[in-house]
Amino acid sequence: MTSQFQRIGIVGRHDDPRVSGHMQALVGHLNGLSLEVYASEALDLELVGGEAAAPAARLHHVAEAELIDHVDLIIAIGGDGTMLYASGLKGRRDVPLLGINRGRLGFLADITPEEMLSSVDRVLAGEFSRESRLMLETTLERADGSTVRAEALNDIVLQRRETGRMVDFETRVDGRYVNTHAGDGLIVATPTGSTAYSLSCGGPIIEPGLDAVVVVPICPHTLTDRPLVMPADQPIDINMLERDDTKAEVTADGHSIGEILPGDRLRICRADRRITLIHPPGYDYYEILRSKLYWGRDLRTPVADDKDSS
Amino acid sequence: MTSQFQRIGIVGRHDDPRVSGHMQALVGHLNGLSLEVYASEALDLELVGGEAAAPAARLHHVAEAELIDHVDLIIAIGGDGTMLYASGLKGRRDVPLLGINRGRLGFLADITPEEMLSSVDRVLAGEFSRESRLMLETTLERADGSTVRAEALNDIVLQRRETGRMVDFETRVDGRYVNTHAGDGLIVATPTGSTAYSLSCGGPIIEPGLDAVVVVPICPHTLTDRPLVMPADQPIDINMLERDDTKAEVTADGHSIGEILPGDRLRICRADRRITLIHPPGYDYYEILRSKLYWGRDLRTPVADDKDSS
Amino acid sequence: MTSQFQRIGIVGRHDDPRVSGHMQALVGHLNGLSLEVYASEALDLELVGGEAAAPAARLHHVAEAELIDHVDLIIAIGGDGTMLYASGLKGRRDVPLLGINRGRLGFLADITPEEMLSSVDRVLAGEFSRESRLMLETTLERADGSTVRAEALNDIVLQRRETGRMVDFETRVDGRYVNTHAGDGLIVATPTGSTAYSLSCGGPIIEPGLDAVVVVPICPHTLTDRPLVMPADQPIDINMLERDDTKAEVTADGHSIGEILPGDRLRICRADRRITLIHPPGYDYYEILRSKLYWGRDLRTPVADDKDSS
Amino acid sequence: MTSQFQRIGIVGRHDDPRVSGHMQALVGHLNGLSLEVYASEALDLELVGGEAAAPAARLHHVAEAELIDHVDLIIAIGGDGTMLYASGLKGRRDVPLLGINRGRLGFLADITPEEMLSSVDRVLAGEFSRESRLMLETTLERADGSTVRAEALNDIVLQRRETGRMVDFETRVDGRYVNTHAGDGLIVATPTGSTAYSLSCGGPIIEPGLDAVVVVPICPHTLTDRPLVMPADQPIDINMLERDDTKAEVTADGHSIGEILPGDRLRICRADRRITLIHPPGYDYYEILRSKLYWGRDLRTPVADDKDSS
Repeated sequence: MTSQFQRIGIVGRHDDPRVSGHMQALVGHLNGLSLEVYASEALDLELVGGEAAAPAARLHHVAEAELIDHVDLIIAIGGDGTMLYASGLKGRRDVPLLGINRGRLGFLADITPEEMLSSVDRVLAGEFSRESRLMLETTLERADGSTVRAEALNDIVLQRRETGRMVDFETRVDGRYVNTHAGDGLIVATPTGSTAYSLSCGGPIIEPGLDAVVVVPICPHTLTDRPLVMPADQPIDINMLERDDTKAEVTADGHSIGEILPGDRLRICRADRRITLIHPPGYDYYEILRSKLYWGRDLRTPVADDKDSS
Repeated sequence: MTSQFQRIGIVGRHDDPRVSGHMQALVGHLNGLSLEVYASEALDLELVGGEAAAPAARLHHVAEAELIDHVDLIIAIGGDGTMLYASGLKGRRDVPLLGINRGRLGFLADITPEEMLSSVDRVLAGEFSRESRLMLETTLERADGSTVRAEALNDIVLQRRETGRMVDFETRVDGRYVNTHAGDGLIVATPTGSTAYSLSCGGPIIEPGLDAVVVVPICPHTLTDRPLVMPADQPIDINMLERDDTKAEVTADGHSIGEILPGDRLRICRADRRITLIHPPGYDYYEILRSKLYWGRDLRTPVADDKDSS
Repeated sequence: MTSQFQRIGIVGRHDDPRVSGHMQALVGHLNGLSLEVYASEALDLELVGGEAAAPAARLHHVAEAELIDHVDLIIAIGGDGTMLYASGLKGRRDVPLLGINRGRLGFLADITPEEMLSSVDRVLAGEFSRESRLMLETTLERADGSTVRAEALNDIVLQRRETGRMVDFETRVDGRYVNTHAGDGLIVATPTGSTAYSLSCGGPIIEPGLDAVVVVPICPHTLTDRPLVMPADQPIDINMLERDDTKAEVTADGHSIGEILPGDRLRICRADRRITLIHPPGYDYYEILRSKLYWGRDLRTPVADDKDSS
Repeated sequence: MTSQFQRIGIVGRHDDPRVSGHMQALVGHLNGLSLEVYASEALDLELVGGEAAAPAARLHHVAEAELIDHVDLIIAIGGDGTMLYASGLKGRRDVPLLGINRGRLGFLADITPEEMLSSVDRVLAGEFSRESRLMLETTLERADGSTVRAEALNDIVLQRRETGRMVDFETRVDGRYVNTHAGDGLIVATPTGSTAYSLSCGGPIIEPGLDAVVVVPICPHTLTDRPLVMPADQPIDINMLERDDTKAEVTADGHSIGEILPGDRLRICRADRRITLIHPPGYDYYEILRSKLYWGRDLRTPVADDKDSS
């Protein structure tokens, strides 16, 4: 097949029975199209292939850290979490991602299992749109001089670890003091992450085309401490303040990057690289929002529409 | 039939095609059981009966204001709005209400059309539970000395009528000053009303067995002006403050009772009468909440459950 | 004085005693600097000048519609409302605005009376920063073919006028269907307007440098109908849906532009013109936020900090 | 002095310089009135007394666990945390609490340092009101059969300990299934606790006289999972559901009572005992709310009040 995508990387939780069948079908399908299929060494052939998996012999295994460098396209099968995992794979160049959901529509994995093969065929035939998504980069500078770096497609979260104690911290944007916060922590989310944890904490939905981030305090002590949307090109600094027994942690896309202590500084800014999502024709961000948020459903019976009965 | 309910009042929007068929079936069914069926004069026999409605000859018409005094049970067919209407019918004594929903489950009309006849039969056979619901009474005392009174099962709402201008008002509870508010208005809701407009304005859900009301500011200017739940036996007074061009209105269960002006006082307290709801066996308040609020559905794909893909 | 601002326009509520004194002092001061001072004909010399106002003889009166065309700078004395008024003055070219607050700090009128004369002197001497703020333009296309247009610096609001009835409407962004809403209405706010009515309705704060708008449903019936932040260059269309007795109104910066009926369409997009604000040295957006939102104050006593007493 | 309170217990953080001076003054004052003053052994005489503390010789030290049994009244000096600590002291009978705040007004410690001595004198003279506050009791029944019990005046909180992972759990009220939750956890708060952590998580304020609790989900995944207010006499059961790597903890008034694992059950109900607060004359719950929540302050300048400038 003369697609612009000749070498396809596959990622997903092969040990999840809701994933492995679709993965097997997809690899077989791609092999049938004479495309080269790559996967991380951790992806188990037996689980994916089973006895019917003769064509799976053409599944090349490479080191996870080199997967991106071998392929033109990554297809992630699973859910938004698998897409987040795939967004963390790095190589010498950026490789676009296509997401298959094992169940119903996801925010990032926007192809359902039923339409998987036909959608993949259309993408391979060149019928697709590209969408570029902003990523964040964070640096945790510890008081002892050590440094931890991480990237995130959804969010960087500072959060207390021990229950029962608030954390106190200051925020600065582009060097300017913003606020002193007390509460459970703070989220800095991309537009992509605005529909994840940030939404549960009172943040707005941000259209993915906007080059912005949202800073959302988590259960803030001060009730007027509200979500703040700002241009993505301004670095955000968070300084932990001294408080007895404060224990807080920083996570990037839900994975801990370590504890943060009084005196430590957390810097969050737009990452240099972005993620390219591939969407089959007909992709509609608002349709996904409506589906995920049950918009337009009559949740509670409107009171007004059957008044004045007799 | 030797039911404790021998005379049944029927209310509903007979001109709503989603209602009239069920109403016809119900009246015919009750007639078949040799029960007396009453309705307001405004309820049109032709619409309810149609050509197949010979048994409907036993539908007695009485003045709306006297309906309650003729019956032992009111069956409301429609939705929660029809139940609100029925709750406003008054007589020499209290008559319990049974609610049939024309579509899916309502908060008050908690019998679906499919189970209508079997549920009614069980209720007539004495298999039911009674639930008593708190009502509110409001008195609008105008600066000119005139007075308007109204009752509500859901809520009393003070709200600005003209857009673009806030209203300013003070609240007192049991004579004690509570707050000076600026914003779009204020809701005083019963537990029954806590899942209606109050919920859209940030109020909590209140279990109907609690003898409490919730005071919910509507889009308050002061962000710390939060919903306040209090014992139902304490009268709440609202005094409108002077402000240029303020126009505000008071509604009871969504029906206007008139304009309120600076200098006017609105008093809201627990009404003397309560409403008795009849529920067929198996009624479960929390099941209705889950159904109406889409609880337990996986609205957004949890991020955490498919991480660590390979 | 050889300032780049030689001709100064003055606006404000001269009949507000908290304004007129400052206005008189300012006009006298500007006259003393040999600058030309202009005002609308409606601005009453007597009120501003009083008996001590001999220098006020050099206050030129022009038609309100021509004020902008006579001046290099508008100084608005009052509050944010006066700044909104000033932002609505239009001429052949854009003229920057400087805002004096009659009381404490405003979001737009960010100079206090105490620092008025010194701040004005520094601005006239060239010590200032310029900030460009996004404006909205709206067109209400009625089903009868008539059209109303308006601009806003804060927000365009669609809102029901009669209490007790929800309004139903659909939103589209750049031609794509977004959602069908039921509730009290919808706000489309600029970053400037994000700290006004939008904030009371649950919207986020948007940093003024972001070229974005926020769409905030007002008391939505559907609890998942949340604020949506989007690029400012995408037109937003709102279509009113049929509903008995719906009455809704559209306002621009709090001023009604007319009723909107089922079948009417409201289009909101970024205006061609922007507003230029002039800030004296030391202006800090976050300082204003902190001041207005009582950030960093210990509103409620933290529970954790004095535990483990003995 | 012939007060009904002859033996006074003193609690507070004597090592907090904002507390120790007031404590010293109070003990001296009480000694001067020939009242017996008791304190826990941990309360350091030197720190409290200093060189001027000769009268402090009459401060009796007893074991913390026996303090309540020796006194008629507990005076807590510090803040609401010290009052929470004092509410946890148990004895053979209930002893009322009086709270002195080291700084400004607290929700529970409602006497300021300035009015301390005069307020105490009035209370000792019999001029006071009693207020009874609801307490919660919780039992954590582990899958291994072990059990932990605790009481709380503010709240019982179930909360995830590790960031990045939600917890899943089911709630039942009086044996009836309510909901399956996913998110950061759940708060069950008393009216007293409704103005603490619960308020930061979106809960309503509950008037202390209401015999109710509020169940508040913390950052729930499902946006319609809203606070629920219910009668205090219904036990609430929480069952942890299986989920990879879930780590959650239970706290009572901010103190950990242990980890909760899938299969464990947490039961929360009204405690048998209540707390009696003593208030000097003039105590006003709403005044404290206004003070703590900055009610009635003009946080943001109303837009409408200075429009139509000229």
